[in-house]
Amino acid sequence: MIDLNADLGEGFGRWTLTDDEALLSVVTSANVACGFHAGDPSVMRRVCDLAAERGVRIGAQVSYRDLAGFGRRTMDVPADELAAEVAYQVGALRVFAEAAGARVAYVKPHGALYNRTVHDTDQAGAVVAGVRLAGGDLPVLGLPGSRLLAAAEDAGLTGVPEAFADRAYTPAGTLVPRREADSVVTDEDAVVRRALSFAVKGAVEAVDGTTVAVAARSLCLHGDTPGAAGIAVRVRAALEEAGVGVGAFA
Amino acid sequence: MIDLNADLGEGFGRWTLTDDEALLSVVTSANVACGFHAGDPSVMRRVCDLAAERGVRIGAQVSYRDLAGFGRRTMDVPADELAAEVAYQVGALRVFAEAAGARVAYVKPHGALYNRTVHDTDQAGAVVAGVRLAGGDLPVLGLPGSRLLAAAEDAGLTGVPEAFADRAYTPAGTLVPRREADSVVTDEDAVVRRALSFAVKGAVEAVDGTTVAVAARSLCLHGDTPGAAGIAVRVRAALEEAGVGVGAFA
Amino acid sequence: MIDLNADLGEGFGRWTLTDDEALLSVVTSANVACGFHAGDPSVMRRVCDLAAERGVRIGAQVSYRDLAGFGRRTMDVPADELAAEVAYQVGALRVFAEAAGARVAYVKPHGALYNRTVHDTDQAGAVVAGVRLAGGDLPVLGLPGSRLLAAAEDAGLTGVPEAFADRAYTPAGTLVPRREADSVVTDEDAVVRRALSFAVKGAVEAVDGTTVAVAARSLCLHGDTPGAAGIAVRVRAALEEAGVGVGAFA
Amino acid sequence: MIDLNADLGEGFGRWTLTDDEALLSVVTSANVACGFHAGDPSVMRRVCDLAAERGVRIGAQVSYRDLAGFGRRTMDVPADELAAEVAYQVGALRVFAEAAGARVAYVKPHGALYNRTVHDTDQAGAVVAGVRLAGGDLPVLGLPGSRLLAAAEDAGLTGVPEAFADRAYTPAGTLVPRREADSVVTDEDAVVRRALSFAVKGAVEAVDGTTVAVAARSLCLHGDTPGAAGIAVRVRAALEEAGVGVGAFA
Repeated sequence: MIDLNADLGEGFGRWTLTDDEALLSVVTSANVACGFHAGDPSVMRRVCDLAAERGVRIGAQVSYRDLAGFGRRTMDVPADELAAEVAYQVGALRVFAEAAGARVAYVKPHGALYNRTVHDTDQAGAVVAGVRLAGGDLPVLGLPGSRLLAAAEDAGLTGVPEAFADRAYTPAGTLVPRREADSVVTDEDAVVRRALSFAVKGAVEAVDGTTVAVAARSLCLHGDTPGAAGIAVRVRAALEEAGVGVGAFA
Repeated sequence: MIDLNADLGEGFGRWTLTDDEALLSVVTSANVACGFHAGDPSVMRRVCDLAAERGVRIGAQVSYRDLAGFGRRTMDVPADELAAEVAYQVGALRVFAEAAGARVAYVKPHGALYNRTVHDTDQAGAVVAGVRLAGGDLPVLGLPGSRLLAAAEDAGLTGVPEAFADRAYTPAGTLVPRREADSVVTDEDAVVRRALSFAVKGAVEAVDGTTVAVAARSLCLHGDTPGAAGIAVRVRAALEEAGVGVGAFA
Repeated sequence: MIDLNADLGEGFGRWTLTDDEALLSVVTSANVACGFHAGDPSVMRRVCDLAAERGVRIGAQVSYRDLAGFGRRTMDVPADELAAEVAYQVGALRVFAEAAGARVAYVKPHGALYNRTVHDTDQAGAVVAGVRLAGGDLPVLGLPGSRLLAAAEDAGLTGVPEAFADRAYTPAGTLVPRREADSVVTDEDAVVRRALSFAVKGAVEAVDGTTVAVAARSLCLHGDTPGAAGIAVRVRAALEEAGVGVGAFA
Repeated sequence: MIDLNADLGEGFGRWTLTDDEALLSVVTSANVACGFHAGDPSVMRRVCDLAAERGVRIGAQVSYRDLAGFGRRTMDVPADELAAEVAYQVGALRVFAEAAGARVAYVKPHGALYNRTVHDTDQAGAVVAGVRLAGGDLPVLGLPGSRLLAAAEDAGLTGVPEAFADRAYTPAGTLVPRREADSVVTDEDAVVRRALSFAVKGAVEAVDGTTVAVAARSLCLHGDTPGAAGIAVRVRAALEEAGVGVGAFA
């Protein structure tokens, strides 16, 4: 049984980005942008309505406050401010999820905040403090082995590890940094094959050809690239064909 | 029995404005800024914590998205976008109210949105739609006779009429527009006297010397002027001395 | 001799909108967004570099401060603030134009500010005051008969009237409001025919079938719709085939 | 001969912070906020008008784009974006300086950007690239020994070293980090004495009691603390009494 998640609702005002309509037909968990890196109240409402209609689980994709940088620029936000910012975003999204008859079911940091909380204990703790501040003991989605998942579990929350079918892995089971060549898998067939490998074997082929175990309860599909929806459809079809149950994590 | 409300939490980042600490010792309802005209997550959290600690009721002071203009510039926001923006703000504040063991108990529009929804049926309806979207059937604070209160009541919500002790009234019971001379009452003794008149007689002396009935369940005290806290203290003391119960509206 | 202008550089951070590359091969004047409704410093720099390279004239497309609404929501900005905001935008763009070896050669208001200054004397005067504050006696692009062009000329600036090949006109020579059916001409052949009519006859067919004179020194081509670049290419080719000189206004 | 500089124009919309009026009677160089961490077009215009009237030199106080954090949060902005952001701010300010009959005469980074460019070669280079993009070969104000001043000089610009009379220095001539106790000198007499020491001896007493040389052509006075203007007046009076010429750097 595996969950499929994607970043959605990443438009803002006049601008659109993610193909929300198409991806909501494929994924089981929607990481909805909450207005800090993308997403305005109207977009958030629309995505929540669609997600609820299709039975897709709604998560808060929280970010640094950085529209101009799309949340991709690391910021030294003091821990207490960061916690409050995370809670603010969760609360804002909750209104639209609940108005649609659903609920915010988990939290996932976006962009630079996601990357920073892999290693930064202070900011990982701040994100988790924000999740707790927001109430409801929400699970946190993140990288296996990250400070973020450790902090979530220390705080009594569920940490949900995810894997990336389109990213290369080191023999140690971590992501090959984007600045290195071949850090991204662009071949569609390979992406589908790797998704299957994560789901069926709990492992993937590392850059050195060895097989490395990666415990993932969710696979992250990208939604902001051309052809994103097409790959997502293929991944889901391949999983189902292989008899893997596709559904939101428990 | 009368409620005293004031706009609070109107700082943003490095900037401060309202004397939240002092006013929370006087008022019974705090209109907390939600980040669109003022108020950042950290300020919102602090004000909610203080308000809960002192038993002051928390309301969402919703605004147009306009930090540069402090929400004082009328904006032609389409009704559906405005409704979503209102709901977003209520939801964001709710997190901090609930974390403090309290709840968001009402909604009051700020600045240009307050003024516009006195007469504009479309935007008044949008604000009420936003309140309903946010759930919980929250009461709406506004001017007696305003489109806003009418729309709230049409939607099955409670409209709570408020009066301004420091504003001049026409014989018809409406506010003298700010652009006219003598629209604001600056004499402190007069402000206190007028507050008493609203609470005890349900009436105030109009600009032409006649007495006009003004049905108000709450008095709005201003918090962003020098000496604001001092006047607030005097108003509350005078009410209590006159035997008027001071407490949040039912 | 006719000028062709289009709104360009309307991306922001991660988001793109206008096909700047393609349109800069067609138009003779580029209305570059300055950061208030769209356009960030990096986009502004890139568009100015490209425009200078291709000999396209650079104009400042100034707007209300409203990223969330893309400058399409009328705002009651006080005149002195609006003037300062206009000057700020012109100054910011000037740096990139001059770094590219070109200059800011004119100003055109965007969206709601464009529409409002057709009729609103106060805001039209504020825009012109902003243009004068920015120095250099820049021409102002606008609708024939608008308050904006009148205010520009009263202030000793050049008002440059423009026409829209894809908009319907009343027999009085004004635009049919967008809220009315048939306000926009969608047939590509008709758009090309009407562009020719403006340039060759100084007139266009109104909605009632009569011919109405429209004095235009520039034609506005839209850049933010699918197929925009294609229509622009056809308009330019038709004009040149008909022997109309295409070039920036004097 | 010594220059006195202060950060000014750090209000935004409804919020005020620095006592611009008082400080412009004391300093010889005004670091004017350009809208990215503080400062809106109206504030910028007003400060430039006042500065020009009093013969105070105008500098662009450039920052990360971070109103919510007042530019005090380090951000990983890519070098080319940062350069464009710096140029944008300089250009916007230039309009108001020139409208006042003055000019932008130098650039000084604010807050986190100032601190980061002490050690970060990449961002220091980006700031200098932005200054060059803005044209006019403007001098750059910064910490002696910083990467920023080195980058400015490498690019053929003038680096102007400054000192802080209210900050403690290490025996190596660098600032004691703010996180350490006694990093800030709060005693007014000591601040005045240290200002004199910088100006007269080119040296100051370090935290260990030794005397350390600090080559400074400008002294930075803080403008955003209560009593800031009072200390500034005392520093200037003491310098003049000691026969030190007070004037903008050459």
